[in-house]
Amino acid sequence: MDFAPDATTRDYTDRARAFLEGQVLPAEPVLDEQLAATPDDWTVRPVVRELQQKARAQGLWNLFLPGDHGGAGLTNLQYAPVAEITGWSPRLAPAAFNCAAPDTGNMEVLNDFGTPAQKERWLEPLLDARIRSAFCMTEPEVASSDATNIGTLIRRDGDHYVITGRKWWSTGAMNPDAAVFIVMGKTDPDAARHRQQSMILVPRDAAGVRIVRPLSVFGYDDRDHGGHAEVAFDEVRVPVENLIAGEGDGFAIAQARLGPGRIHHCMRALGMGERALALMIERASARHAFGRPLADQGVVREWIAEARIQLEALRLLVLKTAWLMDTVGNRHAMTEIQAIKIAVPRAVQQIVDRAIQLHGGAGVSSDTPLAELYAGVRSLRIADGPDEVHLASLGRAQLRD
Amino acid sequence: MDFAPDATTRDYTDRARAFLEGQVLPAEPVLDEQLAATPDDWTVRPVVRELQQKARAQGLWNLFLPGDHGGAGLTNLQYAPVAEITGWSPRLAPAAFNCAAPDTGNMEVLNDFGTPAQKERWLEPLLDARIRSAFCMTEPEVASSDATNIGTLIRRDGDHYVITGRKWWSTGAMNPDAAVFIVMGKTDPDAARHRQQSMILVPRDAAGVRIVRPLSVFGYDDRDHGGHAEVAFDEVRVPVENLIAGEGDGFAIAQARLGPGRIHHCMRALGMGERALALMIERASARHAFGRPLADQGVVREWIAEARIQLEALRLLVLKTAWLMDTVGNRHAMTEIQAIKIAVPRAVQQIVDRAIQLHGGAGVSSDTPLAELYAGVRSLRIADGPDEVHLASLGRAQLRD
Amino acid sequence: MDFAPDATTRDYTDRARAFLEGQVLPAEPVLDEQLAATPDDWTVRPVVRELQQKARAQGLWNLFLPGDHGGAGLTNLQYAPVAEITGWSPRLAPAAFNCAAPDTGNMEVLNDFGTPAQKERWLEPLLDARIRSAFCMTEPEVASSDATNIGTLIRRDGDHYVITGRKWWSTGAMNPDAAVFIVMGKTDPDAARHRQQSMILVPRDAAGVRIVRPLSVFGYDDRDHGGHAEVAFDEVRVPVENLIAGEGDGFAIAQARLGPGRIHHCMRALGMGERALALMIERASARHAFGRPLADQGVVREWIAEARIQLEALRLLVLKTAWLMDTVGNRHAMTEIQAIKIAVPRAVQQIVDRAIQLHGGAGVSSDTPLAELYAGVRSLRIADGPDEVHLASLGRAQLRD
Amino acid sequence: MDFAPDATTRDYTDRARAFLEGQVLPAEPVLDEQLAATPDDWTVRPVVRELQQKARAQGLWNLFLPGDHGGAGLTNLQYAPVAEITGWSPRLAPAAFNCAAPDTGNMEVLNDFGTPAQKERWLEPLLDARIRSAFCMTEPEVASSDATNIGTLIRRDGDHYVITGRKWWSTGAMNPDAAVFIVMGKTDPDAARHRQQSMILVPRDAAGVRIVRPLSVFGYDDRDHGGHAEVAFDEVRVPVENLIAGEGDGFAIAQARLGPGRIHHCMRALGMGERALALMIERASARHAFGRPLADQGVVREWIAEARIQLEALRLLVLKTAWLMDTVGNRHAMTEIQAIKIAVPRAVQQIVDRAIQLHGGAGVSSDTPLAELYAGVRSLRIADGPDEVHLASLGRAQLRD
Repeated sequence: MDFAPDATTRDYTDRARAFLEGQVLPAEPVLDEQLAATPDDWTVRPVVRELQQKARAQGLWNLFLPGDHGGAGLTNLQYAPVAEITGWSPRLAPAAFNCAAPDTGNMEVLNDFGTPAQKERWLEPLLDARIRSAFCMTEPEVASSDATNIGTLIRRDGDHYVITGRKWWSTGAMNPDAAVFIVMGKTDPDAARHRQQSMILVPRDAAGVRIVRPLSVFGYDDRDHGGHAEVAFDEVRVPVENLIAGEGDGFAIAQARLGPGRIHHCMRALGMGERALALMIERASARHAFGRPLADQGVVREWIAEARIQLEALRLLVLKTAWLMDTVGNRHAMTEIQAIKIAVPRAVQQIVDRAIQLHGGAGVSSDTPLAELYAGVRSLRIADGPDEVHLASLGRAQLRD
Repeated sequence: MDFAPDATTRDYTDRARAFLEGQVLPAEPVLDEQLAATPDDWTVRPVVRELQQKARAQGLWNLFLPGDHGGAGLTNLQYAPVAEITGWSPRLAPAAFNCAAPDTGNMEVLNDFGTPAQKERWLEPLLDARIRSAFCMTEPEVASSDATNIGTLIRRDGDHYVITGRKWWSTGAMNPDAAVFIVMGKTDPDAARHRQQSMILVPRDAAGVRIVRPLSVFGYDDRDHGGHAEVAFDEVRVPVENLIAGEGDGFAIAQARLGPGRIHHCMRALGMGERALALMIERASARHAFGRPLADQGVVREWIAEARIQLEALRLLVLKTAWLMDTVGNRHAMTEIQAIKIAVPRAVQQIVDRAIQLHGGAGVSSDTPLAELYAGVRSLRIADGPDEVHLASLGRAQLRD
Repeated sequence: MDFAPDATTRDYTDRARAFLEGQVLPAEPVLDEQLAATPDDWTVRPVVRELQQKARAQGLWNLFLPGDHGGAGLTNLQYAPVAEITGWSPRLAPAAFNCAAPDTGNMEVLNDFGTPAQKERWLEPLLDARIRSAFCMTEPEVASSDATNIGTLIRRDGDHYVITGRKWWSTGAMNPDAAVFIVMGKTDPDAARHRQQSMILVPRDAAGVRIVRPLSVFGYDDRDHGGHAEVAFDEVRVPVENLIAGEGDGFAIAQARLGPGRIHHCMRALGMGERALALMIERASARHAFGRPLADQGVVREWIAEARIQLEALRLLVLKTAWLMDTVGNRHAMTEIQAIKIAVPRAVQQIVDRAIQLHGGAGVSSDTPLAELYAGVRSLRIADGPDEVHLASLGRAQLRD
Repeated sequence: MDFAPDATTRDYTDRARAFLEGQVLPAEPVLDEQLAATPDDWTVRPVVRELQQKARAQGLWNLFLPGDHGGAGLTNLQYAPVAEITGWSPRLAPAAFNCAAPDTGNMEVLNDFGTPAQKERWLEPLLDARIRSAFCMTEPEVASSDATNIGTLIRRDGDHYVITGRKWWSTGAMNPDAAVFIVMGKTDPDAARHRQQSMILVPRDAAGVRIVRPLSVFGYDDRDHGGHAEVAFDEVRVPVENLIAGEGDGFAIAQARLGPGRIHHCMRALGMGERALALMIERASARHAFGRPLADQGVVREWIAEARIQLEALRLLVLKTAWLMDTVGNRHAMTEIQAIKIAVPRAVQQIVDRAIQLHGGAGVSSDTPLAELYAGVRSLRIADGPDEVHLASLGRAQLRD
C-alpha cells in the first residue's frame, strides 16, 4: 500500500492547478458578463472557447478517457485529482478541458460500444469539441431510478427505428450545438427485466424532436453548460445503424456509463468542497464581529476542521474506487462506486451549506460561487438515482455477503 | 393551561384557510405567467392586487397589527395560525393580506414610534397597500449582526440630516412603488454601544438615493415581492422631521421591530414546512418505484413522521412565544424569540430538503414550489442575524441565570 | 389557548421541587452507600423508605393516579410537571412519591380493570407501598413490539389457568418484595390478531415461577429499583379469578397501560434532561482550560442553547399530549403519544451525551449522575417498542389521513 | 498510489484473523465466567494467560512495536489491520497479543527514551508480559487536555525526586501486577509552557503511592484489563535515575507517545465498528417482526449501508495516517492523527448505537458485546483530550495554512 501519487499524476495535477489559477478563475467574471449580455443564448460562450484552445494546446484535453483511445491515457486513479481540480470551477473548468458531463459519458459510450461509422460521425467531433451532445434517460412521469419504468418506446420499422416518448433533465440539450442525443428506450417491453432497454443515437435535427422547455435548478438555468431540457420525441425515425450495440443492451450500457460518470461527479464534488472550504477559511479570517474575527467564535473552527476531515477521508475512498476500477474493473467496484455516490455529495452539501452560513447574505447571492455550488451538489444527490436507492441497494449487498 | 384556540382564532383561521385554498393556491400559476410575461418589471403583479381586494373585502387585512390601531385587533397568539396559513404560499398570501415583510415591520415601527405627520404620510398608504416600503439595515462590508459595525452615517446639518452609506438586502426595494426606506445609521459613533444608532425615513425619490443592483437568493430574483436591492445613499438630505423617535434610539427600535418580525417569519416558516410535508405525503403515495409506492420504502415514513413531530413541537413553542409577547411583553419573551428564530427555520429547511429529495428532479425545478421554498427558508437562517449569533447569545443567557 | 399553569399545578410543583431539593438530592449519596454496603440485596433500601414516609406525610403520594380513585386527583396535565421534577433523581424521587414504573402502570391496570377482590389483594398494598410488582410482557426470543409474536401460553384447565413461557426485562422483579407479576400471554393463538392475548396476575411465590437472572443496562444492575429480571414460568397454575378483565383483552389493556406509561417516561426524561443541562451549565462556568472557562470555548454555548430549545419545545408537546389525554382521551392522543415517545428520549439522550462530553472522565464515571442517566434514557428508546416501530407507525398514520 | 496490502500485511492479517476466530471469540464466555467467579480480583485472568502463550507461540506478539527493537518489525501501515482485528474483542485480543494500552505506549516510551537500566528493569518484563504498567497523566481537578494545568509536582531532593499529586483514569492500575507507573508532573512550573513537565518511573510499591479507588465507565469496572484507578502520590521518593529523558522533556514525550497511542485506538475502534456491523447484519436477517425480517424494514438497510461507507472511508484515513507516520514521521502526521482521533470514535459510536437499537433489550444488556463496546468507544471521545479540543486545534491549523 502506498499513498504517494505517481509522477504522471503529479505532473497533470500541477499543470491543471496552474491552469485553474492562471486561466480559469480569472475567467469566471468574464463568463458572468457574457451570460448577462446574451440572456437567451444557450450556446457555449466565447470565453469557454478560448479556454478550450489554451487547455488543448497544453495537453489538458480529453483526460477523462482511459486507455489509449485518443485521450492522454490516464488511469482513473491518475485522472481523479485532475477532475477534482476542475470541480473548483464547475461552470468553466470541465468544459475547458473537454471533460464535462454529459459529453464525457457519451464519448465513453461511443468509444466503448460505437461502430466505426458512429465514432466517425459523432465521437470525433465530440473529442474536438466541435459539437456537444445530450443523454436522454430520465422521464418526467416515472421514477427513472427503476429502469423497468421507462416509457419511451423504440419500435423497429423496416430499416428504421421509430422513437416516441418524453424525457427531461437532458443536460446540455438546450444548447443548439448539442447535435446528437443518446436516447434510452424500450425495444422489447416483454423481455427480461434488464433486456428490455436499448440506446439509440438521435440527431437533434431529426423530425419529431422537440425541445419543450428548459428546467431550472434552484432558480438557476445552468445556461453556461446548455441547461437542462425537457424533450419530446414524437415518432422520430432514425436508421437502424443508429442503434448502439444491440437491442436489449441499453441497461448494460447505462450501467457501464454510470460507473465512470458517478466517480467523475464525485471527484469534481470534492473540488467544490475544497473551494467552499477555502472560502470558509478566508472569510473566517477576514470578517470581524463583536471585536474578533469569526475564526475565534463559536463553531467556526469546528466547521473548518470537520470539513477538512470529511474531504480527506472521502477523497481516499474516491481514489480507492478509481484504483479498483483500474485494477479489477468497474463491475467489481460497484459497492465503492455506490458508497462514494452516496457519501461525497452529502458531505460536500453540508460543507457548502456551512460556507454559505459563514458568508451570510453574500453566501446565498451571486457574490460568491457558493449558492450555485450548492444547487449543483444538491442535485447530485438526485441525479443517477437518489441516495436512498443506492443506500438500500448497498445495504442489501452487505446483507447478502 | 389550555391548548384549545379561542373562537376568534378559529374564525380567522377558518377564513384564512378557505381563502388560501379557494383563491391563493389557484392564483400561483397565474403569478408565474404574469412574472414570465414581464421580465424586468419589479412592481406588484396584477394578480396580487386582485387578491388584495378580495382579502380586504373579507376582513383578512392588516391582521398582523396588534392592539386597536387599525388592524383587526388580534393578539400575537390569535394572529399566529393565520400567519402560518400564509406561509403555504409565501409569494402570494402574505401580500394578499397586506401582511408581508418588510412592510409589516415598517408599519409597526411607524405605528409605535412615528409622529402623527409620519403616520399620515407613510403609515396610512402602507395600511392601504397604496405604497410599499423597504428597511435598510444590513451593509455589505460588515457583519451587521453586530450593530456597532454599522458604517452608514446620519449627520445633522441644520434642519436636515445627511445620510451616506451603502446598504444591501433591502427587501422590496427593487419595486419602484416602494416609496419610503427606513434607514439605520449612526448619528453618534462615539456614544455608548447601543446609543450610536438612529433610524430615519428616506423617500425613494430623494436626491442621492441610488438602487445599485438586485441581489439573487440562490438563483431567484424574488421579483414577486420586490426583490432585494443594494442601495447607495450618497449625501442624501432629508428634513429632521424624518427621524424616527430620537437620536440614539435606532438600536432600541430595531430590537422592538425584530421581535414581531422574527415570530412572523417563524409562523410563516411553519406553513412552508406544512406545505412541504403535504407534498411529501402526496408524492409518497402517488409515486411508484420497484413495484411499490415510495411510502412503503426505506426512510420515507420516518421522514414523514419526523416532519410531523418537529412541526407539532415547534408550533407549540411559537405559540407560547406569542402568548408571552401578549402577556409579559416582547422584552420578556427574548429567550423564546431567539429559540424559535433558531429552531424553526433549521427544522423546516430539513423538511423541505427531504421533500425535494422525495420529488427528485421535480423537487429542484420550478415544477413544485419546493426549491423556492428552500431558498426562502434557508435565507431565514441568515436574515436578522445568523443562527450562530443567536445560539451564542441564548447560551450566554442560560449561563448567566 | 393559555400557557399558564393553574394553581393546583403550581402548588404541587412547588412542593415537589422543595422536596427534591431538600430531601431527595441530599439522599443520593446515602443511597450509593447503602447499595455499596449490601451488594446482593435487591430490596428497597432504607433511605427510600424514609423518603416515602416524608413524601406521603406531605401529600406527595400516588399523584400519578388520575381521577378520584385514591390519588390526589390530578389530571395528566397537572401531574406532568411533578413527574418531570422526579426525573431529576430517577433512582429516588419516583419511588419516594410511589410514582415509579412499573408499579404505576400496574396500579392503573388494577384500578381500571381489576375486580374488587383483585384490588383488595394487590392494589391496596401497592398504593401503600407495602409490596412492589412487575410487568412481564417482553420475551427474549421474539420482537415483542409485535404482540402477535408473544410465545407465552395461558391455558385454561378447569378452575385454573396454566402459564408457560419465558419473559425478560421484567423491571423490579429481582426485588423479593415484588409480590405479584402481571403476565401477558396468549389464551387463544387462533383468535384475531389483537384478541389472542390476555393478562393474568401471578403471585411471585406460585409454584413454577423462577427468577432466572438479573439483566444489566450498560453495566448497571439498577438494583435501586429492583433490577430487571429474566423470569421463567413453567406450568404455573393460578385460579381463574386471577385473569384481568376477560380472555382476549390483553392487547387492549396493554395499549391502555402504555399510553400513560409512555407519557410518564417522557415527563421524567425531561427532568433528566434538565438536570444534565444544569450540570452542563455549572461545569461550563466552573471549569477552565487554556486560560478561559469552557463556557467561552467552541461549541459549549451552542450545546447549552440547543438543549434549552429542545427541552422547551418538547415539554410543550408533552403537556399538550397530557391535555389531549385529559380532554379527548388516550385513544385520540395516540399520534401525540407516539410523537413524544420518539422525540423526547432521543433529544434527552443527546443532551446527556453532551453533558458527559463536557465533564470528561467525570462524565462517564459514577462521580456525576450523567452516565447512569444516559443508560436510563438510552433504554427508553427501546422500551415499549423501539423508536423505529413508532416512527413507521406514525408515518403510516400521516399517510392515511 | 496503490491500495493493495503487501505480503507481510496479508500474512499477519490472515493469522491474526484466524487466531481471533479460532481462539479469542470462543474464549469470551470463559472470560465472563472467570470474572464472575472472582469479583474482587483485578489481576489478569487465566484465560488471558493461556491466549498469550498461544499467540506468542505463533509469533503474534508485540506487533505494535515498530522498527527492529524486539517486535516483529512491522511498520505502522502493516500493523494497522492487525490492530483492527484485535478491536473485534477488545477485552481479550489486545492483551492476548501483548498489544494492549496502556502497556504499548509505556513500552514505546521506554523503548524510545529509556536508559539501558530502565529498559532492563521495566521494558523486558513488559515485553514478556511478566508485569503490567500504568500511565498517570490525567488529574481529577483540572482539564488535563491543557498540559499547563497539571498540578502534580516532581521536586528534586538530592539523589531523589519527590512526587506529590493526585491522578485518575490510570488505566490498568487496579491490577496489583501493574508494577510500574509512568507519572507526568511538573519539575519546573516556571519554565516555558511546554518545558515545565517531566515523566518519571514510579514503582507501585514505593512508599506514598496509594490506590484510592476504582473508577467505572458507565456501569463497567473494566476489571478485565485492570480497571481505571484514582491514585494518590504523597511525597513519593524515587531515585533520580527514574526520570525518563531529562527534566522538561515530559510534554515532548507525551506528544511522542500519544501519536501511536491514538492511531492504535483508532485501529481497534474500526474493529469494534466492524463487529457491531457484523452483529447488525446478522440480527437484521435473523430477527422477524410484523411478518418480515428486520432487514426489509424502515431504516435498517440504510444503517447498514452508512456503517459500511463510514468504516471504509475512515479505514483509509487511518491507513494513510499510518503511512505518513512511517514515511514522514509522527510530527508531520499531526493533522491526520487529530483527524482520525476525532472522526473514528464518533463514527463507531454511532454504528454501535444503531446496532444496539437493532438488538433491543439484548443490545443494552450483557447478552451481546454491544453495550460494553459502546462504553469503550464513547470513552475514546474523551481520552487523550476531548474531540472539541482536537477540532479546535485542527481548525486553527487549517486557518494558519
